[in-house]
Amino acid sequence: MFVKAITPRDQDYSQWYIDVVTKAELMDYAPVKGCMVIRPYGYALWEAVHDGLDPRFKATGHVNAYFPLFIPESFLSREAEHFQGFTPQVAWVTRGGGEDLAERLAVRPTSEAIIGPMYAKWIQSYRDLPVLINQWCNVVRWEKATRPFIRTTEFLWQEGHTCHRTEDEAEAETLGILEIYRDFVEGTLAIPVLVGRKSEAEKFAGALRTYSIEALMSDGKGLQSGTCHNLGQHFAEVYGINFLDADGQLKPVWQSSWGVSTRLIGAVVMVHGDDRGLVLPPRIAPIQVVVVPIPSDKEADLVASGVASVREALGRAPAGDGLGRLRFKVDDRPEYTPGWKFNDWEMRGVPVRLEVGPRDVKAGQVVAVRRDTGEKLKLPADPVTLGGTVTEILEAIQGNLFEKAKRFREENTREAASLAEIGEIMETGRGFVLAPWCGGDACEADLKEKTGATTRCLPLAKGLSSSAVTTPAPGTKCSLCGEDARYMAYFARAY
Amino acid sequence: MFVKAITPRDQDYSQWYIDVVTKAELMDYAPVKGCMVIRPYGYALWEAVHDGLDPRFKATGHVNAYFPLFIPESFLSREAEHFQGFTPQVAWVTRGGGEDLAERLAVRPTSEAIIGPMYAKWIQSYRDLPVLINQWCNVVRWEKATRPFIRTTEFLWQEGHTCHRTEDEAEAETLGILEIYRDFVEGTLAIPVLVGRKSEAEKFAGALRTYSIEALMSDGKGLQSGTCHNLGQHFAEVYGINFLDADGQLKPVWQSSWGVSTRLIGAVVMVHGDDRGLVLPPRIAPIQVVVVPIPSDKEADLVASGVASVREALGRAPAGDGLGRLRFKVDDRPEYTPGWKFNDWEMRGVPVRLEVGPRDVKAGQVVAVRRDTGEKLKLPADPVTLGGTVTEILEAIQGNLFEKAKRFREENTREAASLAEIGEIMETGRGFVLAPWCGGDACEADLKEKTGATTRCLPLAKGLSSSAVTTPAPGTKCSLCGEDARYMAYFARAY
Repeated sequence: MFVKAITPRDQDYSQWYIDVVTKAELMDYAPVKGCMVIRPYGYALWEAVHDGLDPRFKATGHVNAYFPLFIPESFLSREAEHFQGFTPQVAWVTRGGGEDLAERLAVRPTSEAIIGPMYAKWIQSYRDLPVLINQWCNVVRWEKATRPFIRTTEFLWQEGHTCHRTEDEAEAETLGILEIYRDFVEGTLAIPVLVGRKSEAEKFAGALRTYSIEALMSDGKGLQSGTCHNLGQHFAEVYGINFLDADGQLKPVWQSSWGVSTRLIGAVVMVHGDDRGLVLPPRIAPIQVVVVPIPSDKEADLVASGVASVREALGRAPAGDGLGRLRFKVDDRPEYTPGWKFNDWEMRGVPVRLEVGPRDVKAGQVVAVRRDTGEKLKLPADPVTLGGTVTEILEAIQGNLFEKAKRFREENTREAASLAEIGEIMETGRGFVLAPWCGGDACEADLKEKTGATTRCLPLAKGLSSSAVTTPAPGTKCSLCGEDARYMAYFARAY
Repeated sequence: MFVKAITPRDQDYSQWYIDVVTKAELMDYAPVKGCMVIRPYGYALWEAVHDGLDPRFKATGHVNAYFPLFIPESFLSREAEHFQGFTPQVAWVTRGGGEDLAERLAVRPTSEAIIGPMYAKWIQSYRDLPVLINQWCNVVRWEKATRPFIRTTEFLWQEGHTCHRTEDEAEAETLGILEIYRDFVEGTLAIPVLVGRKSEAEKFAGALRTYSIEALMSDGKGLQSGTCHNLGQHFAEVYGINFLDADGQLKPVWQSSWGVSTRLIGAVVMVHGDDRGLVLPPRIAPIQVVVVPIPSDKEADLVASGVASVREALGRAPAGDGLGRLRFKVDDRPEYTPGWKFNDWEMRGVPVRLEVGPRDVKAGQVVAVRRDTGEKLKLPADPVTLGGTVTEILEAIQGNLFEKAKRFREENTREAASLAEIGEIMETGRGFVLAPWCGGDACEADLKEKTGATTRCLPLAKGLSSSAVTTPAPGTKCSLCGEDARYMAYFARAY
């Protein structure tokens, strides 16, 4: 009954996505336009993102703090480019405590403009550097067209804001965090990503350089999944964040900012999900294993003892990836049939189902079904080995999901030498196109208008060890305008 | 130099508090009136509150979720008493996306009005109950007079919102959470609390009954430190949260809501702090032990080897209270003197300081100084036993801080038989007054006007095992008006 309710992906991908996120109870629509409720099953995924990233931030010397939700307009408007970039999306508080406010307050769309003035107060000397602060919070950006998790008026994120003595240090921080994002998104969310620099048109308003991780959804559209900005000294100059260096000179600090958001949950849905619903990588699945007893009126005690034995074995098993105990649930609700439960838990993306029926107990076995492949396995119901066997299956699923997504991305990454070719790809299989580009704004705008594709990123020549971008062979022409190419670029239609 | 900068408590308690929270870098003032920045050292205390409470909530079946920041005015106003209670404090968003909004949006002061309509959608049958959801988030209540952590326009909190089939279940949930609060605040924050029911005048706007934990600050003023509301069926009726019971009847659910906030950090400061600054209970101290080398030009290597050995020993020691490894820091900054560091770390409330000088290394010892008592102890610098010895000292400090605060509360809890007596107590030592009360609103208002004291709570007769409040012996008269007393009540001036 559930499976039928999910629209097939090839019939209507957008509706499939909405069906999955609502029916798997990841979210629900709120009575405020563009806002959503993150339901417990969806929020557990955000907790997994927090629990994966936060220790990585802390291990690299970052600390958490909390800055105010409200930013006075005069603070937001100090940095003109930044203000221009965000003001169309700002929600404004104009009344509080029963009175009209003398100055309206922006609900933060991002926090550079409130953090900058604080850093200006706190930082005096080179001894105060680096400042490595992150915050987990909500932000608001008024959106016209919204999509759950992917683009919502309010969303949850973390935003890191750091200050450094030199440009090199700020750049190393920016790339270091991008590597943390890549490692987490690939290793835990099982989503392969491209790492690269954003084009001038696509970079953060006010930044010197923006880097991002870019993922490919199963409909061939790209999704920017995390960004790191080297802010240069731009905000420092505007907000007066200066330090007395060892040479006695007063200098503006070099800054970075970086963030990932609840959008990552949308990425998990669109990369791994299928026509039966959600497919969750075991490392972030709130429930990794569901145990479904196959009831038998005659042999109820036998089934109960089999379930008890499985429960005990799983209770001793590790979750994998150092995340504590295996997360499992026994679904012994009498009011639902096993078949209904199979569909329901598949729809919710639980990686492994264990079935325990009278015949299984007699045969000393448990039937395991993998969510990713549908494969059925008969496992010995040995209380000593069962937990370890299940953990191994979970790790196999984790690896398979990543490999599958990577294969899909490789199959859907194409080269192209002309605008026409890119246009044709965007009209058919979509995916990423790697092509030489002159770097011109006009070309980029033309591409977007004619094909719907945008510049996702300029790949880095040496991965995350250096900020150098890949350059085409001398004489290579821009795929868009035919002038000399300066960059290789990934283009895609994107969310 | 730091110690001098803190105003003594008996000179100006309010200024002492501000000095401590700013100089220990728990917070800083934000450029928005009534808002504050929670700096990393202060935010680490909030993380400790989260890490203490969240597992307790989860162990009792609660799950986290996230509801929108914005509540349309029409939703907030549906429950008249609730709206009346909160509307004077609401911040209103009237403009978004470059347009005036058709309906203004409240920045949530609390989330009953946005959660209720969602529960009405999600709950159909008694099988859907109980619903046990919590969220960690920011809320905004426009305040005229603010004080860091204690009363700020924006603050962080957790708010639990639950739905139940029966009144008894809702009441058991309400008291069960109050017990979790009590256990955490007493056991981890080392703050003794009174548990009791709020008077009608002091209860949550729209609730059936409110319970609270009440702490006593070192200036003799009370602080409501956590509240649990049995909401009855009031909000369920307004928002249409009905379920089909097993008997085929459609019934409104019974609800509870409950919360603690960043106010708890203010309580820690005001209960344990002294004229030298902050004093942190070891179980929440971000840094439990600071190691200060006493440098020696001639014997630098000796000191370095002593510090290395201490570092290694502490690295293997547990933090106590099952919270992982001991949290320690070696302060080997060459630009500060040991004396300066002693003062600085004392001001920041670090529970134990270990001093390692050349004479100590030669004598095979480490000097430990307790922040709570100032006591100096010579500990054998044995790498095998040192960690355990330090952990024991930390647990002793934890216990001592609780006992000391409890003694202070006991010494400052008095009985009184008349308004005049209460007034005199409030003008002198303050503290809690336990007195018989008729329960009348007029008496309560009179008390407040004449003495500044309010009803903190009506103590529970059987602790948290029952909601019955303590009643006075028959014939006892109200200490305020002389009519028959119905309750025993704790009165105090409060923040």
